[in-house]
Amino acid sequence: MLQRSLQGSTRAIRRAAQPSAVFAGSRFDARFQSSDSGLAVLNLGICGAGTVGGGVCEIIAKQQSFFRKNLGVDLVVKKVCVRDMSKPRDFLAPNGSPMEYTTNIDDVLNDPDIDCVVELIGGTDKAKDIVFESIKKGKHVVTANKALVAEHLDEIVGLLDTNPKVNFGLEAAVCGGIPIISLMQSSILPDAIQQVTGIMNGTTNFMLSKMEGEGADYAVVLKEAQDLGFAEADPSADVDGYDVRAKVSILAKLAFGTTVELDNVPMTGITRVSSNDFAYAKQMNCTVKLLGVARMVDNRLSVFVSPMMVPLDNAVGTTSGATNIVEIRSESLQSSSFVGQGAGRFPTANSVMSDILAVAQGRGLNAPFQRQTKRYIDNNYTARFYIRLQCKDGLGVIREVGELCEKHGVSIHAINQTPITDFNDIPVGLVTEEAQFNQVDQLCDSLQKCGFCLERPLAMPFLDA
Amino acid sequence: MLQRSLQGSTRAIRRAAQPSAVFAGSRFDARFQSSDSGLAVLNLGICGAGTVGGGVCEIIAKQQSFFRKNLGVDLVVKKVCVRDMSKPRDFLAPNGSPMEYTTNIDDVLNDPDIDCVVELIGGTDKAKDIVFESIKKGKHVVTANKALVAEHLDEIVGLLDTNPKVNFGLEAAVCGGIPIISLMQSSILPDAIQQVTGIMNGTTNFMLSKMEGEGADYAVVLKEAQDLGFAEADPSADVDGYDVRAKVSILAKLAFGTTVELDNVPMTGITRVSSNDFAYAKQMNCTVKLLGVARMVDNRLSVFVSPMMVPLDNAVGTTSGATNIVEIRSESLQSSSFVGQGAGRFPTANSVMSDILAVAQGRGLNAPFQRQTKRYIDNNYTARFYIRLQCKDGLGVIREVGELCEKHGVSIHAINQTPITDFNDIPVGLVTEEAQFNQVDQLCDSLQKCGFCLERPLAMPFLDA
Repeated sequence: MLQRSLQGSTRAIRRAAQPSAVFAGSRFDARFQSSDSGLAVLNLGICGAGTVGGGVCEIIAKQQSFFRKNLGVDLVVKKVCVRDMSKPRDFLAPNGSPMEYTTNIDDVLNDPDIDCVVELIGGTDKAKDIVFESIKKGKHVVTANKALVAEHLDEIVGLLDTNPKVNFGLEAAVCGGIPIISLMQSSILPDAIQQVTGIMNGTTNFMLSKMEGEGADYAVVLKEAQDLGFAEADPSADVDGYDVRAKVSILAKLAFGTTVELDNVPMTGITRVSSNDFAYAKQMNCTVKLLGVARMVDNRLSVFVSPMMVPLDNAVGTTSGATNIVEIRSESLQSSSFVGQGAGRFPTANSVMSDILAVAQGRGLNAPFQRQTKRYIDNNYTARFYIRLQCKDGLGVIREVGELCEKHGVSIHAINQTPITDFNDIPVGLVTEEAQFNQVDQLCDSLQKCGFCLERPLAMPFLDA
Repeated sequence: MLQRSLQGSTRAIRRAAQPSAVFAGSRFDARFQSSDSGLAVLNLGICGAGTVGGGVCEIIAKQQSFFRKNLGVDLVVKKVCVRDMSKPRDFLAPNGSPMEYTTNIDDVLNDPDIDCVVELIGGTDKAKDIVFESIKKGKHVVTANKALVAEHLDEIVGLLDTNPKVNFGLEAAVCGGIPIISLMQSSILPDAIQQVTGIMNGTTNFMLSKMEGEGADYAVVLKEAQDLGFAEADPSADVDGYDVRAKVSILAKLAFGTTVELDNVPMTGITRVSSNDFAYAKQMNCTVKLLGVARMVDNRLSVFVSPMMVPLDNAVGTTSGATNIVEIRSESLQSSSFVGQGAGRFPTANSVMSDILAVAQGRGLNAPFQRQTKRYIDNNYTARFYIRLQCKDGLGVIREVGELCEKHGVSIHAINQTPITDFNDIPVGLVTEEAQFNQVDQLCDSLQKCGFCLERPLAMPFLDA
């Protein structure tokens, strides 16, 4: 494999020092201009040659003549940094790419010919060094790393400010194949966004769709998702909501210009969602979806992650399986929805590629977070809530539930206890009027302490139509 | 109104001759650099101050401080060209914009200070002069004019080739508030597109949704749409499919790089869709939607406009009312759907604004149609078809229908004649196996000539899942 890759390097790739010319297709930065071919050459250093990295190389190989002929750009994979040189790779070097393998990241960072570093290793340790060092060295960066971006948003903004020639592409970091980042950066840029809502995690949506369709319980679908390779052995990042929290925080920054503290974002995962919840949801013509929400209400920004009750006549409610959707409500566009594959080799690689082409064609952004506004952050968001209790049978249960709701100022909109089948394990569904997250949280605390309550009640907000 | 607009001109707007600087936010063209404010000033000449033009001015006025502070651009509406100076306008001049009204287009074209002409008058006569002259004079162009672009695609491409500094924005020309043009130009650019399908006309989708929901007939919903101002007094552009044909032709050019002859695009409108079709559709768990389709099958490009039988479990099938949807099937992204408002003041104005900002921020494209490939065009597309006949009762009708299908090589997949309620007007629904458009067209010719046939049968292809 390596041998075949290296054959490509015989093709001479020279970079010109002469000033940029306006090129049929787009403007180009002088540094990419190739003197002999007339093409704008962009030398890439790819860090991580796994699922997505391999997909990127495959797309470059396949679309190369289109990129050269129609877009006037020549993408050259100069180096690929991997953890294990001996691991067999399932992709070839694009024609004309040296694609030298290395395990030493400095081989990429210190190569003055590499214009753009593509960070696809994930995590927040080594990846942080790669991204930060690349920016400091004036190399463009394309990354798929939501955790890194979400955790270091303000540092990245600061670094880019001091390195204003560096383009920073993060399309692949949020919702795989849905181009929600560039939509926020261009098409929706003139608009005033009010709310961003989305199914941003394919693994959990696959699981919830299974629970909805088959009436199966959480543990069963988790096992199935793990067997199919959809869920990790340690599924926490997906099922506890960390993945969605990182994504929605990035979208909140793009939409509202404000960085939220990840630790302060209210986050509920799907581990306690049960078939009872889907049964109650169905009665309300709803389903349960794990959503990331960022919205402005009364000039306050609320960002949260929670399983939510979603009406089935809403596009979010009918988005099933591993598919993702992001719905944006904004002043001019009203409601816009963007639906696509949220993960997978080629959908994610396409997003990486769209960033790479933007850099190569001179359309890349050096200030990816163009909105910069300090918003008042309100983690104590308001919604109508569904609350499901698991109770033992006993006299006075509904009276006590009613008393506690009254005590916490939570008004009951509807209550439903289906006829008892197991006196020791009775689901009771409540729907509240508009209430604050903290009120409902404290109500759940109080309910949990009641003798009849088998476990902490699960509360989920409704997604309003 | 005019007086108030002119007050804005007291603010001095100067343009610098010095070279461009790289600016926090983006790269800027030297010509827009303002020496005193540090902002990149873009002087606009807006042609047409109706629904969309007014919306553009309103958005500039409202978002001005965001554009200046966060994006570093200052959008100045220098002149507005209108047909009738005396007509009252429902919008004010943005702060800092002279917004001089004129009825003479030369006042805009010959103003050397105007950097970007925004063409919003529609039609293909005067608008053509405006767009073509602006390009020739080196002014950037933003247009919402699908008819003009679709009819003069190759001329526009040629003009832009010879004026490589001119940006050309056409986001608002297709599907109002859905950013399908820029998605094609950036996010989906690395991918190999296989099919573009969409509900691209809000008026007819409103009408068909009414027919579906209320069982109403065509004439009734047309009257209603006209009364509500959704449909024109002469509704032909919408109901006969011309509007969709222009849009899908533009999308075909973006997706496949090939210009199709508008006259050769098979086009069927909705004027003959009846409540019988919706009744048969319902039996098949489908509905009827007017779609534009562009797709590659066996290396041949087919573009057509037709009411189609769309499964209700497809996102296209559940997109109702004035909402538009475009679904793209492509190699890497598989299926992506983009849903939003297809028309209206602010959705369309937002698309115009996103183009204007792209020009102002130096992200605009001078080659909007980046794919350039000669594809074999196959207007005789293949599909499964639904055919509805209106018959008089008589002996041998089904036998004769069967004979004609056999003669034309059209295999019958299903046939359905609901029990007769009116012996003089009986709907018969046929579903064919895969057949060619021309075969089905000729079959309909032959059927029409039969004595039992009350009118030409209506054929519609199925949208495959």
